[in-house]
Amino acid sequence: MILTINCGSSSLKYQLYSDDLGTVAAKGIVSRIGEPRPTLDHTAGARSVHCEVAAADHGAALEVLIDALMDAEVGAIDDIHAIRAVGHRAVHGGDTFVDSVAVTDAVLEQLDACTPLAPLHNPINLIGIREARRRLPDVPHVVVFDTAFHQTMPAHAHVYALPYELYDEHKIRRYGFHGTSCRYVSQRAADLLDRPADDLRMVICHLGNGVTIDAVAGGRSVDTSIGFATFSGVPMGTRSGDFDPGLIFYLHNTLGLSLTEIERMCYRTGGLLGVSGVSNDMREVVEQAVTGNARCVLALDMFTYAIKKYIGSYAAAMGGLDALVFTAGIGENSAHIRARVCAGLRFLGIALNEATNDATRGVAVDISAPSASVATLVVPTDEERMIAEDTRRIAMAGDAALATGRRAASEMEPAE
Amino acid sequence: MILTINCGSSSLKYQLYSDDLGTVAAKGIVSRIGEPRPTLDHTAGARSVHCEVAAADHGAALEVLIDALMDAEVGAIDDIHAIRAVGHRAVHGGDTFVDSVAVTDAVLEQLDACTPLAPLHNPINLIGIREARRRLPDVPHVVVFDTAFHQTMPAHAHVYALPYELYDEHKIRRYGFHGTSCRYVSQRAADLLDRPADDLRMVICHLGNGVTIDAVAGGRSVDTSIGFATFSGVPMGTRSGDFDPGLIFYLHNTLGLSLTEIERMCYRTGGLLGVSGVSNDMREVVEQAVTGNARCVLALDMFTYAIKKYIGSYAAAMGGLDALVFTAGIGENSAHIRARVCAGLRFLGIALNEATNDATRGVAVDISAPSASVATLVVPTDEERMIAEDTRRIAMAGDAALATGRRAASEMEPAE
Ligand SMILES: Nc1ncnc2c1ncn2[C@@H]1O[C@H](COP(=O)(O)OP(=O)(O)O)[C@@H](O)[C@H]1O
Ligand SMILES: Nc1ncnc2c1ncn2[C@@H]1O[C@H](COP(=O)(O)OP(=O)(O)O)[C@@H](O)[C@H]1O
Repeated sequence: MILTINCGSSSLKYQLYSDDLGTVAAKGIVSRIGEPRPTLDHTAGARSVHCEVAAADHGAALEVLIDALMDAEVGAIDDIHAIRAVGHRAVHGGDTFVDSVAVTDAVLEQLDACTPLAPLHNPINLIGIREARRRLPDVPHVVVFDTAFHQTMPAHAHVYALPYELYDEHKIRRYGFHGTSCRYVSQRAADLLDRPADDLRMVICHLGNGVTIDAVAGGRSVDTSIGFATFSGVPMGTRSGDFDPGLIFYLHNTLGLSLTEIERMCYRTGGLLGVSGVSNDMREVVEQAVTGNARCVLALDMFTYAIKKYIGSYAAAMGGLDALVFTAGIGENSAHIRARVCAGLRFLGIALNEATNDATRGVAVDISAPSASVATLVVPTDEERMIAEDTRRIAMAGDAALATGRRAASEMEPAE
Repeated sequence: MILTINCGSSSLKYQLYSDDLGTVAAKGIVSRIGEPRPTLDHTAGARSVHCEVAAADHGAALEVLIDALMDAEVGAIDDIHAIRAVGHRAVHGGDTFVDSVAVTDAVLEQLDACTPLAPLHNPINLIGIREARRRLPDVPHVVVFDTAFHQTMPAHAHVYALPYELYDEHKIRRYGFHGTSCRYVSQRAADLLDRPADDLRMVICHLGNGVTIDAVAGGRSVDTSIGFATFSGVPMGTRSGDFDPGLIFYLHNTLGLSLTEIERMCYRTGGLLGVSGVSNDMREVVEQAVTGNARCVLALDMFTYAIKKYIGSYAAAMGGLDALVFTAGIGENSAHIRARVCAGLRFLGIALNEATNDATRGVAVDISAPSASVATLVVPTDEERMIAEDTRRIAMAGDAALATGRRAASEMEPAE
């Protein structure tokens, strides 16, 4: 079986897949790690449990999850050796990692070297990987980076027009995030359209608490909305998205705000929350916009307008568009937002089948009108599965029975 | 006659128009004001002069220009009363000024109140207006703002997703620049197409040392690339254009740069110069790109890519596009840049007539291919003329003979 691990600052999410990834045997989350009264939410098939646990750090949380997986009542395995490989999520692979890789000591050192680029996330990811290797030392570990998919962006899309040394010597550039989600979704979109990814120019709208708009041409990310810091791009729940960087000088020099205060606005008090004054949760903002709250209307207008502009700009970047794909919490569930984003994009060939759009929540469906020349799709994202797929591909490359599934069986037949 | 005055930090540009704006009787520039050895460049018809002058401040420079206008040899008037109105350029009208206005003491106070938004420019503009009113106290003065045209942008295009108080209380928003140029060019583009501006959705590409991309729908600016600070938007000669504002925190906190150093990169050492390492002048960058300098190639790619993306995003913002208009130094003169910007935009209906494009420099021409559904135009900008037109319209509204030209003559005929 393949275990995936995703460490946040105070949480550890996991999923356990069958070797062929056909089923999810168990999944769960340890929350409030290092805080008072940590909890476990765990499910295996029809059985599930919610309880307080001891999880003072991520190492302890890992013990909690292994105990849960091996639990007689709610577990999914009775021998730890049933876990044949572990896949880890890491946030920032810098310009070092262009694909997922098997974990070695050298890889961990390189990941650590990327820490300045993601000072809050990479150290936690490193702890998770080190603890898991300690606890499961005999199996291959694989690390999957949120940034890796975007490493194919050409220089004109990833360099900023600042003095070149910043790029050359200090690696200051557009990195992007949500790469694992965008890669997964773009592959599934090609499947849904039954066309090779090579032929397709897509814009992926990953609209969750975090938002990424991604231009994917021929299966490769060619531009993406998040730049260097995770608050950039489209406005998000509490994150501001892009704004004129000159504002920072004004806020500091003229209004007297400290950089710390300004940074807080970018990450915590901007976005839907900052504009609406009501909530960072899109559902609440939509509800109050419908009942006429002017600032909620504005927040919604700004959100959909920013996405619309990205769609137009990425169509221009790719010389045209074949598919527009919605994913993540808002993208999968809100027909309202999808309709507003697509309104007025008829000139690009985008047109929705209203009834299909309205009826679609959290499932993969083509929601285009018959007259559309661009396919608009909803495709639920599944970063855990992408991590599991990469882990299978990389860790088990030498293990024919696992890595190649049915082909392995045929290889055992005598050659013609 | 109408005099236009445009004060920069160390220069004063002027033009003298006939009452009907049919001819430019004289024009010139006083340079190096307040520096060693100021100079005057002055032309009136076929006569011109270049000489050193005494211009310790903008008041002295104004005397220089009036002397030049009244000079027996190179002058254009022999009585100062021939000047019937004066039009002034001002950079920042905040959200107070949505059109050009007749200068009053109250207007100057309001303009002064906008100084924090343009601390380098507005004080100089104020000095120019005050000196000109002192010297020419009996004629109306009009002030024309670079920001006014963009005041029609809807809230979703001009508000940033930062805490709402920054907008509400501190007027932090997208203002835009080059509004006088964009307004002029969009009007002339409608004339050239012989279609009412009301029916047209245009993108204006003002590509000079400063760059603005402007979305103009129905004659009104609905979005524009420069935000709050004049280095934002598309990369320019030495200005960076937009970048992820999160970089500023990183440059300061992690690399230890001061805000002053970072701001210098944004205004002085970024843009074409920062990327190419060669020049801020587009001609040189193009020359060296052609001979294979990789960083010049990159600078050019970044420049045209940024413009291309704005065109796509503004088309999306307006629900389609009718005309694409190139203006200012680069836009009027570089067939190469125009061709690169338009490459790959066929899906929007943009297609150039290559021969016409190659042959067009500094004149108003439709450079589209017959197959294009979007008209691509070159339209030389003329901010001075726009200032003169506004001055005529506003200052001389009560002066029928001047303000309305031929209609005034007919009004003198007996009514039927
Ligand atoms: N029906 C819905 N309508 C609008 N927004 C929704 C809906 N369902 C979920 N969302 C929004 O999705 C967002 C969370 O998305 P999700 O992808 O789970 O976030 P994360 O980036 O944390 O993984 C929240 O803003 C939530 O309000
Ligand atoms: N033939 C040309 N090819 C490319 N760039 C040109 C050409 N002619 C002028 N330019 C560029 O135009 C720019 C100056 O534009 P201009 O509109 O005069 O600037 P400003 O914003 O100072 O008014 C310079 O970068 C110059 O290199």
